[in-house]
Amino acid sequence: MERVVRHFQEELEALKSRLLEMGGLAEDRVRRSVQALVDRDIGDIDRVLAGDEAINALHIEIDNRCFKLLALHQPMAADLRAIVAAVKINTDLERVGDLAVNIAEAAKRYTMHPPVKKLIDIPRMAEIAQVMLRDALDAFVQRDTALAQRVLNEDDKLDSLKTQIFRELLTYMLQDPSTIEPALDLLLVSRHLERIGDHATNVAEDVIFMVSARDVRHHSGDPEPDVMKH
Amino acid sequence: MERVVRHFQEELEALKSRLLEMGGLAEDRVRRSVQALVDRDIGDIDRVLAGDEAINALHIEIDNRCFKLLALHQPMAADLRAIVAAVKINTDLERVGDLAVNIAEAAKRYTMHPPVKKLIDIPRMAEIAQVMLRDALDAFVQRDTALAQRVLNEDDKLDSLKTQIFRELLTYMLQDPSTIEPALDLLLVSRHLERIGDHATNVAEDVIFMVSARDVRHHSGDPEPDVMKH
Repeated sequence: MERVVRHFQEELEALKSRLLEMGGLAEDRVRRSVQALVDRDIGDIDRVLAGDEAINALHIEIDNRCFKLLALHQPMAADLRAIVAAVKINTDLERVGDLAVNIAEAAKRYTMHPPVKKLIDIPRMAEIAQVMLRDALDAFVQRDTALAQRVLNEDDKLDSLKTQIFRELLTYMLQDPSTIEPALDLLLVSRHLERIGDHATNVAEDVIFMVSARDVRHHSGDPEPDVMKH
Repeated sequence: MERVVRHFQEELEALKSRLLEMGGLAEDRVRRSVQALVDRDIGDIDRVLAGDEAINALHIEIDNRCFKLLALHQPMAADLRAIVAAVKINTDLERVGDLAVNIAEAAKRYTMHPPVKKLIDIPRMAEIAQVMLRDALDAFVQRDTALAQRVLNEDDKLDSLKTQIFRELLTYMLQDPSTIEPALDLLLVSRHLERIGDHATNVAEDVIFMVSARDVRHHSGDPEPDVMKH
Protein backbone atom coordinates (compact mmCIF):
# COMPACT_ATOMS: atom_id res chain seq x y z
CA MET A 1 0.00 0.00 0.00
CA GLU A 2 2.80 2.41 0.89
CA ARG A 3 4.35 1.72 -2.48
CA VAL A 4 1.06 2.48 -4.25
CA VAL A 5 0.79 5.75 -2.31
CA ARG A 6 4.34 6.75 -3.19
CA HIS A 7 3.70 5.85 -6.80
CA PHE A 8 0.56 7.98 -6.74
CA GLN A 9 2.43 10.98 -5.35
CA GLU A 10 5.11 10.58 -7.99
CA GLU A 11 2.49 10.44 -10.71
CA LEU A 12 0.76 13.51 -9.27
CA GLU A 13 4.08 15.39 -9.29
CA ALA A 14 4.66 14.33 -12.89
CA LEU A 15 1.16 15.60 -13.78
CA LYS A 16 1.91 18.95 -12.16
CA SER A 17 5.20 19.31 -13.96
CA ARG A 18 3.53 18.55 -17.31
CA LEU A 19 0.90 21.22 -16.57
CA LEU A 20 3.68 23.71 -15.79
CA GLU A 21 5.38 22.78 -19.03
CA MET A 22 2.13 23.31 -20.94
CA GLY A 23 1.62 26.65 -19.17
CA GLY A 24 5.14 27.68 -20.19
CA LEU A 25 4.45 26.76 -23.80
CA ALA A 26 1.12 28.64 -23.81
CA GLU A 27 2.69 31.71 -22.23
CA ASP A 28 5.55 31.64 -24.72
CA ARG A 29 3.14 31.46 -27.66
CA VAL A 30 1.16 34.43 -26.34
CA ARG A 31 4.37 36.43 -25.90
CA ARG A 32 5.59 35.56 -29.39
CA SER A 33 2.26 36.30 -31.08
CA VAL A 34 2.10 39.78 -29.53
CA GLN A 35 5.77 40.47 -30.25
CA ALA A 36 5.23 39.45 -33.88
CA LEU A 37 2.26 41.86 -34.04
CA VAL A 38 4.39 44.70 -32.64
CA ASP A 39 7.28 43.88 -34.99
CA ARG A 40 4.94 43.29 -37.97
CA ASP A 41 7.06 40.20 -38.61
CA ILE A 42 5.17 37.87 -40.94
CA GLY A 43 7.73 35.08 -40.52
CA ASP A 44 7.23 35.08 -36.75
CA ILE A 45 3.45 35.32 -37.17
CA ASP A 46 3.49 32.26 -39.42
CA ARG A 47 5.64 30.36 -36.92
CA VAL A 48 3.01 30.95 -34.21
CA LEU A 49 0.26 29.90 -36.64
CA ALA A 50 2.06 26.69 -37.52
CA GLY A 51 3.28 25.67 -34.08
CA ASP A 52 0.47 24.47 -31.86
CA GLU A 53 1.14 20.72 -32.09
CA ALA A 54 3.22 20.63 -28.90
CA ILE A 55 0.45 22.16 -26.81
CA ASN A 56 -2.22 19.98 -28.40
CA ALA A 57 -0.17 16.84 -27.75
CA LEU A 58 0.38 17.86 -24.12
CA HIS A 59 -3.35 18.57 -23.76
CA ILE A 60 -4.19 14.98 -24.67
CA GLU A 61 -1.33 13.54 -22.64
CA ILE A 62 -2.34 15.45 -19.50
CA ASP A 63 -5.99 14.42 -19.90
CA ASN A 64 -4.85 10.80 -20.13
CA ARG A 65 -2.67 11.17 -17.03
CA CYS A 66 -5.66 12.52 -15.11
CA PHE A 67 -7.86 9.61 -16.18
CA LYS A 68 -5.18 7.12 -15.26
CA LEU A 69 -4.69 8.66 -11.82
CA LEU A 70 -8.45 8.63 -11.18
CA ALA A 71 -8.92 5.09 -12.48
CA LEU A 72 -5.91 3.37 -10.91
CA HIS A 73 -5.59 5.16 -7.60
CA GLN A 74 -9.13 6.24 -6.77
CA PRO A 75 -7.87 9.24 -4.80
CA MET A 76 -9.93 10.89 -2.08
CA ALA A 77 -10.50 14.43 -0.82
CA ALA A 78 -7.55 16.76 -1.49
CA ASP A 79 -5.92 14.51 -4.10
CA LEU A 80 -9.21 14.08 -5.91
CA ARG A 81 -9.73 17.84 -5.96
CA ALA A 82 -6.19 18.31 -7.31
CA ILE A 83 -6.81 15.96 -10.23
CA VAL A 84 -10.20 17.42 -11.10
CA ALA A 85 -8.55 20.87 -10.95
CA ALA A 86 -5.85 19.56 -13.32
CA VAL A 87 -8.52 18.44 -15.81
CA LYS A 88 -10.00 21.94 -15.82
CA ILE A 89 -6.65 23.75 -15.88
CA ASN A 90 -5.59 21.60 -18.82
CA THR A 91 -8.67 22.80 -20.74
CA ASP A 92 -7.91 26.43 -19.87
CA LEU A 93 -4.30 26.15 -21.03
CA GLU A 94 -5.32 24.57 -24.32
CA ARG A 95 -7.68 27.50 -24.97
CA VAL A 96 -4.86 29.94 -24.18
CA GLY A 97 -2.86 28.19 -26.90
CA ASP A 98 -5.81 28.67 -29.29
CA LEU A 99 -5.99 32.35 -28.36
CA ALA A 100 -2.29 32.78 -29.26
CA VAL A 101 -3.23 31.47 -32.71
CA ASN A 102 -6.17 33.90 -32.85
CA ILE A 103 -3.81 36.77 -31.96
CA ALA A 104 -1.44 35.69 -34.73
CA GLU A 105 -4.36 35.56 -37.19
CA ALA A 106 -5.36 39.12 -36.28
CA ALA A 107 -1.69 40.17 -36.49
CA LYS A 108 -1.43 38.74 -39.98
CA ARG A 109 -4.43 40.76 -41.17
CA TYR A 110 -3.13 43.85 -39.33
CA THR A 111 0.14 43.79 -41.29
CA MET A 112 -1.86 44.15 -44.53
CA HIS A 113 -2.74 47.74 -43.55
CA PRO A 114 -0.62 50.72 -42.49
CA PRO A 115 -0.19 50.70 -38.69
CA VAL A 116 -2.94 52.56 -36.82
CA LYS A 117 -0.74 53.58 -33.90
CA LYS A 118 2.32 52.68 -31.88
CA LEU A 119 1.37 49.65 -29.81
CA ILE A 120 1.95 50.22 -26.10
CA ASP A 121 -1.13 49.10 -24.18
CA ILE A 122 -1.49 45.80 -26.05
CA PRO A 123 2.01 44.59 -25.03
CA ARG A 124 1.20 45.75 -21.49
CA MET A 125 -1.99 43.69 -21.51
CA ALA A 126 -0.02 40.72 -22.83
CA GLU A 127 2.57 41.09 -20.06
CA ILE A 128 -0.12 41.22 -17.35
CA ALA A 129 -2.00 38.24 -18.80
CA GLN A 130 1.20 36.19 -18.99
CA VAL A 131 2.14 36.97 -15.38
CA MET A 132 -1.40 36.08 -14.27
CA LEU A 133 -1.14 32.75 -16.05
CA ARG A 134 2.29 31.96 -14.59
CA ASP A 135 1.23 32.96 -11.07
CA ALA A 136 -1.98 30.93 -11.32
CA LEU A 137 -0.01 27.82 -12.27
CA ASP A 138 2.58 28.43 -9.56
CA ALA A 139 -0.31 28.79 -7.12
CA PHE A 140 -1.61 25.41 -8.31
CA VAL A 141 1.71 23.63 -7.90
CA GLN A 142 2.49 25.23 -4.53
CA ARG A 143 -1.12 25.11 -3.30
CA ASP A 144 -0.76 28.84 -2.60
CA THR A 145 -4.18 30.44 -2.17
CA ALA A 146 -2.74 33.89 -1.41
CA LEU A 147 -1.00 33.90 -4.79
CA ALA A 148 -4.22 32.66 -6.43
CA GLN A 149 -6.10 35.53 -4.81
CA ARG A 150 -3.55 38.02 -6.21
CA VAL A 151 -4.23 36.63 -9.68
CA LEU A 152 -7.94 37.34 -9.20
CA ASN A 153 -7.11 40.92 -8.20
CA GLU A 154 -5.01 41.53 -11.33
CA ASP A 155 -8.02 41.09 -13.59
CA ASP A 156 -9.13 44.71 -13.03
CA LYS A 157 -5.92 45.98 -14.64
CA LEU A 158 -6.66 44.07 -17.81
CA ASP A 159 -10.21 45.36 -17.78
CA SER A 160 -9.18 49.02 -17.53
CA LEU A 161 -6.48 48.67 -20.21
CA LYS A 162 -9.01 47.07 -22.51
CA THR A 163 -11.47 49.94 -21.97
CA GLN A 164 -8.69 52.45 -22.63
CA ILE A 165 -7.69 50.66 -25.84
CA PHE A 166 -11.31 50.59 -26.96
CA ARG A 167 -11.80 54.33 -26.44
CA GLU A 168 -8.58 55.22 -28.20
CA LEU A 169 -9.25 52.99 -31.22
CA LEU A 170 -12.82 54.23 -31.50
CA THR A 171 -11.48 57.80 -31.77
CA TYR A 172 -9.16 56.72 -34.59
CA MET A 173 -11.97 54.94 -36.42
CA LEU A 174 -14.34 57.91 -36.14
CA GLN A 175 -11.68 60.33 -37.42
CA ASP A 176 -10.37 58.21 -40.28
CA PRO A 177 -12.42 55.36 -41.77
CA SER A 178 -9.29 53.89 -43.37
CA THR A 179 -8.24 52.83 -39.86
CA ILE A 180 -11.46 50.88 -39.22
CA GLU A 181 -10.32 47.51 -40.52
CA PRO A 182 -6.90 47.40 -38.84
CA ALA A 183 -8.32 48.96 -35.65
CA LEU A 184 -10.86 46.12 -35.49
CA ASP A 185 -8.00 43.64 -35.46
CA LEU A 186 -6.33 45.48 -32.57
CA LEU A 187 -9.64 45.45 -30.67
CA LEU A 188 -9.83 41.75 -31.31
CA VAL A 189 -6.30 41.23 -29.95
CA SER A 190 -7.21 43.15 -26.79
CA ARG A 191 -10.22 40.85 -26.35
CA HIS A 192 -8.09 37.74 -26.85
CA LEU A 193 -5.68 39.00 -24.19
CA GLU A 194 -8.55 39.69 -21.85
CA ARG A 195 -9.77 36.13 -22.35
CA ILE A 196 -6.30 34.81 -21.53
CA GLY A 197 -6.65 36.73 -18.25
CA ASP A 198 -10.06 35.08 -17.78
CA HIS A 199 -8.46 31.65 -18.18
CA ALA A 200 -5.80 32.58 -15.59
CA THR A 201 -8.65 33.64 -13.31
CA ASN A 202 -10.38 30.27 -13.84
CA VAL A 203 -7.16 28.50 -12.85
CA ALA A 204 -6.81 30.66 -9.74
CA GLU A 205 -10.41 29.90 -8.72
CA ASP A 206 -9.77 26.18 -9.17
CA VAL A 207 -6.68 26.45 -6.95
CA ILE A 208 -8.64 28.13 -4.16
CA PHE A 209 -11.33 25.45 -4.40
CA MET A 210 -8.74 22.68 -4.51
CA VAL A 211 -6.88 23.87 -1.41
CA SER A 212 -9.67 25.14 0.77
CA ALA A 213 -12.70 23.37 -0.74
CA ARG A 214 -14.11 26.89 -0.71
CA ASP A 215 -15.94 28.01 -3.80
CA VAL A 216 -15.00 31.56 -4.82
CA ARG A 217 -16.95 31.43 -8.02
CA HIS A 218 -20.14 33.39 -8.50
CA HIS A 219 -19.69 35.61 -5.48
CA SER A 220 -18.95 38.87 -7.26
CA GLY A 221 -22.05 38.69 -9.42
CA ASP A 222 -19.87 39.60 -12.41
CA PRO A 223 -19.86 37.37 -15.43
CA GLU A 224 -16.93 37.41 -17.80
CA PRO A 225 -16.20 41.10 -18.39
CA ASP A 226 -16.88 42.60 -21.75
CA VAL A 227 -14.14 44.28 -23.77
CA MET A 228 -16.33 46.84 -25.39
CA LYS A 229 -17.93 48.11 -22.21
CA HIS A 230 -17.41 51.82 -22.26
CA MET B 1 -22.67 -4.17 -3.70
CA GLU B 2 -25.58 -4.34 -6.09
CA ARG B 3 -27.29 -1.66 -4.09
CA VAL B 4 -24.23 0.58 -4.30
CA VAL B 5 -24.15 0.08 -8.06
CA ARG B 6 -27.83 0.91 -8.40
CA HIS B 7 -27.36 3.94 -6.21
CA PHE B 8 -24.45 5.03 -8.40
CA GLN B 9 -26.52 4.69 -11.57
CA GLU B 10 -29.35 6.69 -9.96
CA GLU B 11 -26.92 9.41 -8.97
CA LEU B 12 -25.42 9.43 -12.46
CA GLU B 13 -28.91 9.81 -13.96
CA ALA B 14 -29.62 12.66 -11.55
CA LEU B 15 -26.36 14.31 -12.61
CA LYS B 16 -27.32 14.04 -16.26
CA SER B 17 -30.76 15.49 -15.66
CA ARG B 18 -29.26 18.45 -13.78
CA LEU B 19 -26.87 19.05 -16.70
CA LEU B 20 -29.83 18.99 -19.10
CA GLU B 21 -31.65 21.45 -16.86
CA MET B 22 -28.62 23.74 -16.83
CA GLY B 23 -28.34 23.45 -20.61
CA GLY B 24 -31.99 24.41 -20.93
CA LEU B 25 -31.46 27.46 -18.73
CA ALA B 26 -28.36 28.53 -20.67
CA GLU B 27 -30.12 28.08 -24.00
CA ASP B 28 -33.13 30.04 -22.76
CA ARG B 29 -30.92 32.93 -21.63
CA VAL B 30 -29.18 33.05 -25.00
CA ARG B 31 -32.53 33.08 -26.78
CA ARG B 32 -33.91 35.83 -24.55
CA SER B 33 -30.79 38.01 -24.81
CA VAL B 34 -30.88 37.92 -28.61
CA GLN B 35 -34.65 38.46 -28.71
CA ALA B 36 -34.26 41.48 -26.39
CA LEU B 37 -31.58 42.84 -28.76
CA VAL B 38 -33.89 42.41 -31.76
CA ASP B 39 -36.85 43.96 -29.88
CA ARG B 40 -34.67 46.71 -28.35
CA ASP B 41 -36.50 45.90 -25.11
CA ILE B 42 -34.53 47.34 -22.18
CA GLY B 43 -36.74 45.63 -19.61
CA ASP B 44 -35.98 42.22 -21.11
CA ILE B 45 -32.28 43.09 -21.43
CA ASP B 46 -32.16 43.98 -17.74
CA ARG B 47 -33.92 40.74 -16.84
CA VAL B 48 -31.18 38.75 -18.61
CA LEU B 49 -28.50 40.88 -16.90
CA ALA B 50 -30.02 40.26 -13.47
CA GLY B 51 -30.89 36.60 -13.78
CA ASP B 52 -27.81 34.39 -13.75
CA GLU B 53 -28.13 33.10 -10.16
CA ALA B 54 -29.95 29.92 -11.17
CA ILE B 55 -27.21 28.87 -13.60
CA ASN B 56 -24.45 29.76 -11.16
CA ALA B 57 -26.12 27.76 -8.38
CA LEU B 58 -26.51 24.76 -10.71
CA HIS B 59 -22.87 25.08 -11.76
CA ILE B 60 -21.72 24.64 -8.16
CA GLU B 61 -24.28 21.92 -7.44
CA ILE B 62 -23.24 19.87 -10.48
CA ASP B 63 -19.55 20.23 -9.63
CA ASN B 64 -20.32 18.94 -6.14
CA ARG B 65 -22.31 16.02 -7.53
CA CYS B 66 -19.35 15.08 -9.74
CA PHE B 67 -16.95 15.18 -6.79
CA LYS B 68 -19.28 13.10 -4.68
CA LEU B 69 -19.67 10.48 -7.40
CA LEU B 70 -15.90 10.28 -7.88
CA ALA B 71 -15.15 10.16 -4.16
CA LEU B 72 -17.85 7.75 -2.98
CA HIS B 73 -18.11 5.37 -5.90
CA GLN B 74 -14.66 5.40 -7.46
CA PRO B 75 -16.08 4.60 -10.89
CA MET B 76 -14.05 2.92 -13.60
CA ALA B 77 -13.76 3.19 -17.37
CA ALA B 78 -16.97 4.38 -19.06
CA ASP B 79 -18.55 5.75 -15.86
CA LEU B 80 -15.36 7.59 -14.98
CA ARG B 81 -15.24 9.12 -18.45
CA ALA B 82 -18.89 10.17 -18.13
CA ILE B 83 -18.24 12.02 -14.88
CA VAL B 84 -15.08 13.74 -16.10
CA ALA B 85 -17.06 14.74 -19.21
CA ALA B 86 -19.77 16.14 -16.91
CA VAL B 87 -17.18 18.28 -15.09
CA LYS B 88 -16.07 19.77 -18.41
CA ILE B 89 -19.59 20.18 -19.82
CA ASN B 90 -20.63 21.96 -16.63
CA THR B 91 -17.82 24.50 -17.19
CA ASP B 92 -18.89 25.00 -20.80
CA LEU B 93 -22.52 25.59 -19.86
CA GLU B 94 -21.58 28.11 -17.20
CA ARG B 95 -19.58 30.06 -19.80
CA VAL B 96 -22.57 29.98 -22.15
CA GLY B 97 -24.56 31.61 -19.33
CA ASP B 98 -21.85 34.30 -19.06
CA LEU B 99 -22.00 34.86 -22.81
CA ALA B 100 -25.77 35.46 -22.60
CA VAL B 101 -24.95 38.23 -20.12
CA ASN B 102 -22.30 39.59 -22.50
CA ILE B 103 -24.88 39.62 -25.32
CA ALA B 104 -27.31 41.51 -23.08
CA GLU B 105 -24.57 44.04 -22.20
CA ALA B 106 -23.88 44.64 -25.90
CA ALA B 107 -27.64 44.86 -26.53
CA LYS B 108 -27.99 47.50 -23.84
CA ARG B 109 -25.32 49.68 -25.44
CA TYR B 110 -26.80 49.01 -28.89
CA THR B 111 -30.18 50.45 -27.84
CA MET B 112 -28.47 53.77 -27.06
CA HIS B 113 -27.91 54.34 -30.80
CA PRO B 114 -30.24 54.28 -33.80
CA PRO B 115 -30.41 50.74 -35.23
CA VAL B 116 -27.75 50.02 -37.85
CA LYS B 117 -29.84 47.52 -39.77
CA LYS B 118 -32.62 44.98 -39.54
CA LEU B 119 -31.21 42.02 -37.61
CA ILE B 120 -31.60 38.78 -39.54
CA ASP B 121 -28.29 36.92 -39.49
CA ILE B 122 -27.72 37.40 -35.75
CA PRO B 123 -30.99 35.63 -34.80
CA ARG B 124 -30.06 32.92 -37.30
CA MET B 125 -26.68 32.48 -35.62
CA ALA B 126 -28.42 32.34 -32.24
CA GLU B 127 -30.82 29.67 -33.47
CA ILE B 128 -27.99 27.53 -34.84
CA ALA B 129 -25.92 27.91 -31.67
CA GLN B 130 -28.90 26.95 -29.49
CA VAL B 131 -29.65 23.86 -31.55
CA MET B 132 -25.97 22.86 -31.41
CA LEU B 133 -26.01 23.20 -27.64
CA ARG B 134 -29.23 21.21 -27.25
CA ASP B 135 -28.04 18.46 -29.60
CA ALA B 136 -24.66 18.24 -27.87
CA LEU B 137 -26.37 17.74 -24.50
CA ASP B 138 -28.81 15.21 -25.95
CA ALA B 139 -25.81 13.40 -27.43
CA PHE B 140 -24.24 13.34 -23.95
CA VAL B 141 -27.33 11.95 -22.24
CA GLN B 142 -28.03 9.40 -24.97
CA ARG B 143 -24.36 8.60 -25.58
CA ASP B 144 -25.05 9.33 -29.25
CA THR B 145 -21.78 9.90 -31.12
CA ALA B 146 -23.52 10.34 -34.49
CA LEU B 147 -25.48 13.27 -33.07
CA ALA B 148 -22.28 14.66 -31.51
CA GLN B 149 -20.61 14.46 -34.92
CA ARG B 150 -23.49 16.42 -36.49
CA VAL B 151 -22.92 19.15 -33.90
CA LEU B 152 -19.27 19.37 -34.99
CA ASN B 153 -20.40 19.72 -38.61
CA GLU B 154 -22.77 22.61 -37.80
CA ASP B 155 -19.89 24.84 -36.74
CA ASP B 156 -19.12 25.81 -40.35
CA LYS B 157 -22.55 27.44 -40.68
CA LEU B 158 -21.83 29.71 -37.73
CA ASP B 159 -18.45 30.55 -39.19
CA SER B 160 -19.85 31.58 -42.55
CA LEU B 161 -22.67 33.66 -41.01
CA LYS B 162 -20.12 35.43 -38.80
CA THR B 163 -17.97 36.27 -41.85
CA GLN B 164 -21.05 37.53 -43.69
CA ILE B 165 -22.07 39.71 -40.71
CA PHE B 166 -18.54 41.11 -40.46
CA ARG B 167 -18.42 42.10 -44.13
CA GLU B 168 -21.82 43.71 -44.06
CA LEU B 169 -21.15 45.70 -40.88
CA LEU B 170 -17.74 46.79 -42.16
CA THR B 171 -19.47 48.26 -45.22
CA TYR B 172 -21.86 50.22 -42.98
CA MET B 173 -19.00 51.50 -40.83
CA LEU B 174 -16.95 52.63 -43.82
CA GLN B 175 -19.91 54.44 -45.37
CA ASP B 176 -21.19 56.14 -42.22
CA PRO B 177 -18.97 56.63 -39.15
CA SER B 178 -22.05 57.21 -36.96
CA THR B 179 -22.73 53.46 -37.30
CA ILE B 180 -19.27 52.47 -35.97
CA GLU B 181 -20.16 52.26 -32.30
CA PRO B 182 -23.42 50.31 -32.61
CA ALA B 183 -21.95 48.13 -35.39
CA LEU B 184 -19.11 47.16 -33.02
CA ASP B 185 -21.68 45.89 -30.56
CA LEU B 186 -23.33 43.77 -33.25
CA LEU B 187 -19.92 42.36 -34.20
CA LEU B 188 -19.39 41.54 -30.57
CA VAL B 189 -22.73 39.73 -30.36
CA SER B 190 -21.82 37.66 -33.44
CA ARG B 191 -18.55 36.70 -31.71
CA HIS B 192 -20.38 35.75 -28.51
CA LEU B 193 -22.72 33.53 -30.52
CA GLU B 194 -19.78 31.94 -32.27
CA ARG B 195 -18.23 31.17 -28.89
CA ILE B 196 -21.48 29.55 -27.77
CA GLY B 197 -21.12 27.31 -30.82
CA ASP B 198 -17.53 26.60 -29.71
CA HIS B 199 -18.79 25.49 -26.31
CA ALA B 200 -21.34 23.20 -27.98
CA THR B 201 -18.47 21.80 -30.03
CA ASN B 202 -16.45 21.18 -26.86
CA VAL B 203 -19.38 19.26 -25.39
CA ALA B 204 -19.74 17.20 -28.57
CA GLU B 205 -16.02 16.33 -28.51
CA ASP B 206 -16.29 15.28 -24.88
CA VAL B 207 -19.23 13.02 -25.79
CA ILE B 208 -17.26 11.30 -28.54
CA PHE B 209 -14.33 10.78 -26.17
CA MET B 210 -16.62 9.55 -23.41
CA VAL B 211 -18.38 6.98 -25.57
CA SER B 212 -15.60 5.74 -27.80
CA ALA B 213 -12.50 6.79 -25.80
CA ARG B 214 -11.47 8.23 -29.16
CA ASP B 215 -9.96 11.69 -29.11
CA VAL B 216 -11.33 13.88 -31.92
CA ARG B 217 -9.61 16.99 -30.67
CA HIS B 218 -6.68 18.51 -32.51
CA HIS B 219 -7.16 16.57 -35.69
CA SER B 220 -8.43 19.34 -37.94
CA GLY B 221 -5.49 21.62 -37.22
CA ASP B 222 -7.96 24.46 -36.67
CA PRO B 223 -7.96 26.32 -33.39
CA GLU B 224 -11.09 28.14 -32.29
CA PRO B 225 -12.17 30.05 -35.40
CA ASP B 226 -11.85 33.78 -35.58
CA VAL B 227 -14.89 35.98 -36.19
CA MET B 228 -13.06 38.64 -38.10
CA LYS B 229 -11.39 36.35 -40.57
CA HIS B 230 -12.21 37.73 -43.98
